[in-house]
Amino acid sequence: MRILGIDPGTGILGFGVVEVSATKRGEFKMVDAGVVTTPAHTPHDERLEDIFNSLTEIIEATKPDVCSVEKLFFTKNITTAMSVAEARGVALLVARQHQVPIFEYTPPQIKQTLTGYGKADKKQVQEMVRVQLGLKDVPKPDDCADALAAAITHAVMTQGVPQAG
Amino acid sequence: MRILGIDPGTGILGFGVVEVSATKRGEFKMVDAGVVTTPAHTPHDERLEDIFNSLTEIIEATKPDVCSVEKLFFTKNITTAMSVAEARGVALLVARQHQVPIFEYTPPQIKQTLTGYGKADKKQVQEMVRVQLGLKDVPKPDDCADALAAAITHAVMTQGVPQAG
Repeated sequence: MRILGIDPGTGILGFGVVEVSATKRGEFKMVDAGVVTTPAHTPHDERLEDIFNSLTEIIEATKPDVCSVEKLFFTKNITTAMSVAEARGVALLVARQHQVPIFEYTPPQIKQTLTGYGKADKKQVQEMVRVQLGLKDVPKPDDCADALAAAITHAVMTQGVPQAG
Repeated sequence: MRILGIDPGTGILGFGVVEVSATKRGEFKMVDAGVVTTPAHTPHDERLEDIFNSLTEIIEATKPDVCSVEKLFFTKNITTAMSVAEARGVALLVARQHQVPIFEYTPPQIKQTLTGYGKADKKQVQEMVRVQLGLKDVPKPDDCADALAAAITHAVMTQGVPQAG
């Protein structure tokens, strides 16, 4: 099973593709990962189009079986939240257009799954992403590691792989 | 100038196309209006795809010069707000894909423009939509009238037509 993890955002959107072994439980491999970025002050609708075009290319190139998207979970800046939600709508649209089923996880679910602790800090989660994928370094930038964390969460949730930590 | 007004929503999205006379200031004509609806319990990603497909058809059929979209302006239900924002992101994307410039107005701006009072109630706004477009009845449902109100707001804002009320 191949999982495309997405960490939605307008200025920067992280993605990470993880391949889960069909035979070896808990064996994950990173296939691809990166970010979709647009320069500062790019008009919002242009950003949405960039996200649409880039995600379409990514899905067509990596052919994921499922998509795992970080669920918005805000309490503070409503304007930022709205603009992230607009980008998220475009991401969900592209997955749907390619018949890729979508699963959604909140940040506490992702933290819990990766580290065994729902309030783990960013660094702990990123370190577990590195360990689970057998990488030398933590993937950079953060949005990229977050997207991989979402993908790993779905793998663990559906395959019942023992939690780390 | 032809203006496509959009009132974003996931379960129901209103649209209304208004033609503004190039010679007679303040002369508006309704070209088309309606709603994009999906049955209750339709999966969210399927709704986003319906909105994408329907708006693409509407823009291709009516060829608007600009798009006027109601700006989200929430204080209460964050979950609803997020899901409306996701639909809004898809609407902005479609406009962008067709090179239609986007203008955004908050509900108080729309109310102020249509009725001369930023806290006017829904009924007053709808009645002014009816009057401005020379219609016999208020367009139904509400989402449709709201979309036309957004279109009229842009017309008034850019053409400096005297405010009603």
